[in-house]
Amino acid sequence: MKVLREIDQVNTLVSEWTKNGESIGFVPTMGYLHEGHIRLIKEAKKENDKVILSIFVNPLQFGKGEDLDTYPRDEDHDRHVAKENGVDLVFLPTNETMYPQPLSVNMTVTNRTNVLCGKSRPGHFDGVVTVLTKLFNITRPDNVYFGMKDAQQVAVVDALIKDYNMPVNLIAVPTVREEDGLAKSSRNVRLSDEERKEAPSIQEALQYGRKLVMEGQNSKEMIIEATVKFLEQKTHGKIDYIELLSYPELEFIEKIDRPVILAAAVFYDNVRLIDNVVFDHEGLVIYG
Amino acid sequence: MKVLREIDQVNTLVSEWTKNGESIGFVPTMGYLHEGHIRLIKEAKKENDKVILSIFVNPLQFGKGEDLDTYPRDEDHDRHVAKENGVDLVFLPTNETMYPQPLSVNMTVTNRTNVLCGKSRPGHFDGVVTVLTKLFNITRPDNVYFGMKDAQQVAVVDALIKDYNMPVNLIAVPTVREEDGLAKSSRNVRLSDEERKEAPSIQEALQYGRKLVMEGQNSKEMIIEATVKFLEQKTHGKIDYIELLSYPELEFIEKIDRPVILAAAVFYDNVRLIDNVVFDHEGLVIYG
Repeated sequence: MKVLREIDQVNTLVSEWTKNGESIGFVPTMGYLHEGHIRLIKEAKKENDKVILSIFVNPLQFGKGEDLDTYPRDEDHDRHVAKENGVDLVFLPTNETMYPQPLSVNMTVTNRTNVLCGKSRPGHFDGVVTVLTKLFNITRPDNVYFGMKDAQQVAVVDALIKDYNMPVNLIAVPTVREEDGLAKSSRNVRLSDEERKEAPSIQEALQYGRKLVMEGQNSKEMIIEATVKFLEQKTHGKIDYIELLSYPELEFIEKIDRPVILAAAVFYDNVRLIDNVVFDHEGLVIYG
Repeated sequence: MKVLREIDQVNTLVSEWTKNGESIGFVPTMGYLHEGHIRLIKEAKKENDKVILSIFVNPLQFGKGEDLDTYPRDEDHDRHVAKENGVDLVFLPTNETMYPQPLSVNMTVTNRTNVLCGKSRPGHFDGVVTVLTKLFNITRPDNVYFGMKDAQQVAVVDALIKDYNMPVNLIAVPTVREEDGLAKSSRNVRLSDEERKEAPSIQEALQYGRKLVMEGQNSKEMIIEATVKFLEQKTHGKIDYIELLSYPELEFIEKIDRPVILAAAVFYDNVRLIDNVVFDHEGLVIYG
């Protein structure tokens, strides 16, 4: 496994692979790899000749007061995980490598962002599309892998790729879950024992809402109301939002007549958890 | 020569070429091809296995009140010129092909634009970088060719490519001139006979300014003053601007201690002409 820190080095290696007709799968991360990332790497391994993993805590996607400085880092662990899982190249750039001068051309996301988590993170997705555009150009992948845990990120990247005709396939990988259904997250360790027992109810509530659609309910308002009620009975966590939007456009709808996302964010004492389910107009799971 | 209108068709052909290890030169244009464009095509032919020419009058780079609707078009002529000069693929998309939905991600240029012609064309370069990012992704060229007549455009594209690590070389091609030095332009036909006789003085004045630097003058103010004075004596045209800036950063400087552009725009009765010369701190021509 190669570990490279300079863009030119990556260019050289990628050009070699491309010349040899080898396909490239790319998994962009901010490091501190967990099972969600490993699932992405495994998918990339299955479908490509070479797999590139990038580890870069992108300052541009952190707002003021967000945890850029305390964002967890463990390069040794990450390199070990990457190697174990057959990654061919780890790209580990510095801030200076990625942003050697102030940008003259800025990218801003004007759609799919003022809903869900985007509401409370102004500028976050601007930073995401900026760094991804750079990373796509540096690694020139055939396929790029994102987890559906961050469904809004997937939707924004989908828009980015379509808007700019980027020559890359977006592969959305289903959320990895604990046996009881809780979405895996490095943040789950911050749950108290009692909270940990209740937290799977987030996914249960979303599935409950989805089943109402299977049974013929198609009013957004009724589904959200029922989902909120279900969740409030199952957990002491404070609901930040439960939203139901078209997917991947993330537009407000009243009737479930196309693919949708039902998504939740819940505050516990020391952590805010998110989860979602994406399903069609008949309630059939697309991503769960 | 292939003529394609759909992005998928271009993707397929470009993938074939790339697999065969063939290099690609790209000449983006708005059509109505003249000798300046032909020069770009010829350069691209010399340095690449395949040459792609795009013809697309990009609505995004026209401001309100600008001449989008009356912009000259002549597809038959352009196809003929392209074929004569050995172009391998002409990409001729429609507006609907290039912009099938409103953009969710916008690109804006915040540097190198509020000088020279950019001052009077707000949003123009935003449209330029947007369409070029799309076209680069569609045609995936090794080299892309622009004329130095639009030096500011070259400077902005240089920033775009650097900021986003785009895997393409920018080749700036010197301005094509009439025998008397007037920069070629389809707009020159709008000059009266007398104006046509005077118009070469624009380039003469810029060269006069450059020669002052060769003789040791290094004050921006003195050079601009002398250039304006020279030009005013030689033509009845009304000077829109004569500017001297660092190149390609297009930053204000007082002393000529690095590569610079000396650029002019002059109003005649029915046309506004632009021209420039780029030279180093000793006055040696870089692009003339």
